[in-house]
Amino acid sequence: MNETTTPPFEIKLAVSAEMVEDTLRRLLDTRPLEGEVARPQRLLDAMRHGVLNGGKRLRPFLVLETASLFDAQGEAALRVAAALECVHCYSLVHDDLPAMDDDDLRRGQPTVHRAFDEATAILAGDSLLTYAFDIIADDATLLSAEKRLALTLRLARAAGIGGMAGGQALDLAAEGETLAEEEILRLQAMKTGALIRYACEAGAIIGSGNDADRERLGEFGAAIGLAFQLADDLLDLTASSEAMGKATGKDAAAGKATLASLHGIDWTRAQLRGLVAQARDILAPYGEEAEGLRQAALFVAERQN
Amino acid sequence: MNETTTPPFEIKLAVSAEMVEDTLRRLLDTRPLEGEVARPQRLLDAMRHGVLNGGKRLRPFLVLETASLFDAQGEAALRVAAALECVHCYSLVHDDLPAMDDDDLRRGQPTVHRAFDEATAILAGDSLLTYAFDIIADDATLLSAEKRLALTLRLARAAGIGGMAGGQALDLAAEGETLAEEEILRLQAMKTGALIRYACEAGAIIGSGNDADRERLGEFGAAIGLAFQLADDLLDLTASSEAMGKATGKDAAAGKATLASLHGIDWTRAQLRGLVAQARDILAPYGEEAEGLRQAALFVAERQN
Repeated sequence: MNETTTPPFEIKLAVSAEMVEDTLRRLLDTRPLEGEVARPQRLLDAMRHGVLNGGKRLRPFLVLETASLFDAQGEAALRVAAALECVHCYSLVHDDLPAMDDDDLRRGQPTVHRAFDEATAILAGDSLLTYAFDIIADDATLLSAEKRLALTLRLARAAGIGGMAGGQALDLAAEGETLAEEEILRLQAMKTGALIRYACEAGAIIGSGNDADRERLGEFGAAIGLAFQLADDLLDLTASSEAMGKATGKDAAAGKATLASLHGIDWTRAQLRGLVAQARDILAPYGEEAEGLRQAALFVAERQN
Repeated sequence: MNETTTPPFEIKLAVSAEMVEDTLRRLLDTRPLEGEVARPQRLLDAMRHGVLNGGKRLRPFLVLETASLFDAQGEAALRVAAALECVHCYSLVHDDLPAMDDDDLRRGQPTVHRAFDEATAILAGDSLLTYAFDIIADDATLLSAEKRLALTLRLARAAGIGGMAGGQALDLAAEGETLAEEEILRLQAMKTGALIRYACEAGAIIGSGNDADRERLGEFGAAIGLAFQLADDLLDLTASSEAMGKATGKDAAAGKATLASLHGIDWTRAQLRGLVAQARDILAPYGEEAEGLRQAALFVAERQN
């Protein structure tokens, strides 16, 4: 065990997750907003099922922590964190669909298409994605128009064809293919890296960091995004499905090459240590203030589920 | 035949469609934008298949025409028109999926999941929706930050749970149910009305119309949105699938009540005439400048496919 994964960090993460969960619950209210006709109950329930699922809320944590480097806390960071989680959860709802990964369970609970039905799961994912842009564009964030636009544009780029959705498409195409290391890295930078990177850049934008801050924190996000993926690949190779709350060993079964399967467990663990060190180095300019982010880097690399 | 549906309007619509198609083709380019890692070819091809399909581009036409009431033409209106069409086409791609309407054809061509595969169709829809927000938020629109945000927020509300996606969910739930007239109206205001209304409001925002302009043109959009749906219901009752380029008689087969099936063909035609008159009245303050919109109202009500 390492001092930085002892209870203090897990408690910090849990406290942050609770604030984000409260924000999400508040946003996924039954009352229609101005400009909305009505919020159909079953669709709203499906959206809630997909979002209010007890996730660790790592991406929101990164938004809140990077924003707090610039003393930006409160509603703006919470709303952007919640919007990002809506995008993350939409991607999970769609990824779980029969035509995609065909998963019945997510965090030990039925996936949205199992708890509701496939059409509702498609629409719930669509609505979560759409709502994310609503949450960020709304002046309830109390951010300037320029900041809200920068957050909107970067989110669209991180989530769309050139980011997460594109990475997912590459991942589907990779089944049964032998990808070169470089192709795997690009796939992962898109599929999981882009949103994690966005989380860290968003904090710099919310907190009025300068361009150097945004780039630096973006690099930090990219490093822990890759660590996140490597840890995931490692868990897919080693962990039981019980610990993960979802099916494991699926990458191998699907014939998907991962960096971990390509290079083995020891290499992957060494890479993870290197990425954590690199991520922590990037944070040097922020001193003690960045301790939460340093702990997050280690947590991502060492997580067991 | 009526003088306002003679070639001049259809040519006007076709010219507008061509400009929008050019804009969409330009936006759906292979080169990644700043902040995008790469644009996977197959996903991009699927997005193009879903969008560059020879549609009439009615919603974009409404954006361009309402913007031109305020002498706003060019890149801003074209980009917003193209973004709106991306949202419309994403909804068609997802609606056509096996879990939704399960359609094999759209405008006489294979639907995206038939031409590609189901997973790619889901991701192509997701990516088109995401890209719409990118297109509007980008400063390439040359619009002020405030206008881009207003356009973003209203689009999210028109497309999300309180608008189009919510209407689609209500529509799914309505199969085999007997809805009251009021429920059908609400369903249609969401499912098809919200985006058409948005098209007209967007023109007012782009063109710096005042609040009264935006509300007035929004009402015009709501009136022709309802007319559009009534005409669709009527066509579903009367037209051949050949003229429509898609399967017809599906509402009745699915046990869906429509206003046309509830009240009959004569009542529906009378309603359509009333809506056209109402839509034209709303445009009175804009004089001759609004002739294209007046023609559009009639076109929507009288369309044969």
